[in-house]
Amino acid sequence: MMITLTYRIETPGSVDAMAEKIASDQSTGTFVPVPGETQELKARVAARVLAIRPLPDAPSPSWPEAPAGHGISHRAEADIAFPLDAIGTDLSALMTIAVGGIFSIRGMTGLRVVDLKLPEAYRGVYPGPQFGLAGSRKLTGVYDRPIIGTIVKPALGLRPQETAELVGELIQSGVDFIKDDEKLMSPVYSPLKERVAAIMPKILDHEQKTGKKVMYAFGISHTDPDEMMRNHDLVLKAGGNCAVVNINSIGMGGMAFVRKRSGLALHAHRNGWDVLTRHPGIGFDFKVWQQFWRLLGVDQFQINGIGVKYWEPDESFVESFKAVTTPLFDTSDCALPVAGSGQWGGQAPETYHRTGRTTDLLYLCGGGIVSHPGGPAAGVHAVQQAWQAAVADIPLETYAEDHPELAASLKKFGKGE
Amino acid sequence: MMITLTYRIETPGSVDAMAEKIASDQSTGTFVPVPGETQELKARVAARVLAIRPLPDAPSPSWPEAPAGHGISHRAEADIAFPLDAIGTDLSALMTIAVGGIFSIRGMTGLRVVDLKLPEAYRGVYPGPQFGLAGSRKLTGVYDRPIIGTIVKPALGLRPQETAELVGELIQSGVDFIKDDEKLMSPVYSPLKERVAAIMPKILDHEQKTGKKVMYAFGISHTDPDEMMRNHDLVLKAGGNCAVVNINSIGMGGMAFVRKRSGLALHAHRNGWDVLTRHPGIGFDFKVWQQFWRLLGVDQFQINGIGVKYWEPDESFVESFKAVTTPLFDTSDCALPVAGSGQWGGQAPETYHRTGRTTDLLYLCGGGIVSHPGGPAAGVHAVQQAWQAAVADIPLETYAEDHPELAASLKKFGKGE
Repeated sequence: MMITLTYRIETPGSVDAMAEKIASDQSTGTFVPVPGETQELKARVAARVLAIRPLPDAPSPSWPEAPAGHGISHRAEADIAFPLDAIGTDLSALMTIAVGGIFSIRGMTGLRVVDLKLPEAYRGVYPGPQFGLAGSRKLTGVYDRPIIGTIVKPALGLRPQETAELVGELIQSGVDFIKDDEKLMSPVYSPLKERVAAIMPKILDHEQKTGKKVMYAFGISHTDPDEMMRNHDLVLKAGGNCAVVNINSIGMGGMAFVRKRSGLALHAHRNGWDVLTRHPGIGFDFKVWQQFWRLLGVDQFQINGIGVKYWEPDESFVESFKAVTTPLFDTSDCALPVAGSGQWGGQAPETYHRTGRTTDLLYLCGGGIVSHPGGPAAGVHAVQQAWQAAVADIPLETYAEDHPELAASLKKFGKGE
Repeated sequence: MMITLTYRIETPGSVDAMAEKIASDQSTGTFVPVPGETQELKARVAARVLAIRPLPDAPSPSWPEAPAGHGISHRAEADIAFPLDAIGTDLSALMTIAVGGIFSIRGMTGLRVVDLKLPEAYRGVYPGPQFGLAGSRKLTGVYDRPIIGTIVKPALGLRPQETAELVGELIQSGVDFIKDDEKLMSPVYSPLKERVAAIMPKILDHEQKTGKKVMYAFGISHTDPDEMMRNHDLVLKAGGNCAVVNINSIGMGGMAFVRKRSGLALHAHRNGWDVLTRHPGIGFDFKVWQQFWRLLGVDQFQINGIGVKYWEPDESFVESFKAVTTPLFDTSDCALPVAGSGQWGGQAPETYHRTGRTTDLLYLCGGGIVSHPGGPAAGVHAVQQAWQAAVADIPLETYAEDHPELAASLKKFGKGE
């Protein structure tokens, strides 16, 4: 059984030699032959280059360190297979062996991991999402449309009572999901304990009165996994059902630890991810990287959206959406995609059409809901209306003719976004 | 009290506007003004741009996504201060707030975090190194020269008994430190438990006979912190005193968890780091990134060396050496620098002279020791002789005249390295 990775190699030299070097360095290789290296041993663990597919040359090197006289870099995609026995099923071993060292190889001018195929041996080894799409729908009671969410803003600075006041208004708006900004964890002006104590009674009171329990994602991330679990327990004991985890900041260890003990839906914010993917010749495709985090147990995965305020192009979001909703082993390991950043409903039609005409997502609007001219309730209505229009293939402008909230959103947010 | 970061900004637009955008986005900002944003609140948590120092324009963008007609990117270093209250002392909050989101900002064509100054409030919050230089010297009994280490090769594939046989030879060589290759953790052909059981009796037997306890760093990394602690305990209970941790693979959570409970010197391998630093316009300077890991408790920090087989230039190693040996708060938070990759003694003089004429390091030679023509013992002698020559300011060639092991190393490794 093999673990297969695809690397996009860029080098002024030979792409074949670089592919062989990856295979050698990341399994049995060293800089001089040493005693004890036998053919039998190599067969046990050596990685093999399965295929090399040439790509057009790169006009300039991704890493600007090419030797003098080498402006042009050759490129190719190389499939390299690692024997399962060489790595096993530990994700930190996989990351170390098949990925960790490769970016240090001299003579490359760019390297990107663009695919990863895990063998059956990984099935069932990791917990995967505990809630995912089905669990998130059940917890929110929203089945026939996207789960609509919003974010408490400003990102930082509100005290627990100030946050709770805003949350009280947002709950009344009919929104399904509210989250702390990912930058809000447990600072001195808003300790998580106090924030939970201020917010959860409002959530539970609203549930008591209406039957609708708004899912609130509290920022529980902490460097220390023990402390993160205490944060988790605070939320769970207060009746909460969701938490924001900053997966890159806590790392695979933090994520594995919390998932093992978690009773909350884990909403992953991937801040820091861009540095690993923004340069197209360096780093990772999301398709690869998200596999680690889904196996570790991400329930809801933030993946930007259409027309975001960030650098990421729409096409990249569409691919990410496909990635997190494509089973690794079966559908239970899919994460709920979360579309966010600058969303207000205007992107609903394109989101719907480019992601396979599905409403199985969490659609997250910050200012698009709370800054609606008619207030947050009108903002939520407008977003729901935009999705109704998208599903019915009715242009937003047409649908807005007898949906005044959507009309107001179009007027306010529809220009220049 | 403030946390100050320095960002090297690259943009076809205004560097001042981008600096302001970092400060705003990473604290109070959002894409449209929202209710509840007051001046008082902003004062509580808003980041401030302290200084902007222009740099020469970049001839081409680091991220190749500049808008059409913008080939030239302006550059500057910007110091931005975050109020301590906005972040607190949690490193995952620091990473999320001051670093995480910045790489996503549209309109940048490059961004690198080049400095981080932590305030006094961080003093004593994290455990820092448990052993570091002093502890590593005490455990190895080596005081008056570099601790000389070697690595069991090939990286992958040896069964525990095969590894133990090699280790038995290496112990006899007089080496001070031996480590598993960072890619070796606990695969099916060499479960850690069996490897420890095969190796530690040899270490302890040698100690019994000679009084010299060779420090062996076992690969204990695992995605699951609980499992990593079980690995740690195996090593500790068998009389071991050191472990290799793949810090990027386990993440800050894994590192914090193991350090809290650790009785072993933690030898950090930074595989994966290169992707965050190799492009000079993107990512992090090591000076910034290593602060996180030292606070979390790295005792021994691998930082490459002079004339390595990887892409990293010597100057970068020299700066890394300075970084890990410069106190954050006091000398107890310094890590022991580990120079490795392609080392054989030939780099001793330059290493010594460029790092402030110190022998306070772990000098790690793989093939340079085990592939010495006279065997590993001669290899160790040669490396020690190279360091004696370096400290005495005697050219290696001169010193080799009456030091045959060094002469043999020069002959074998001295060409084309």
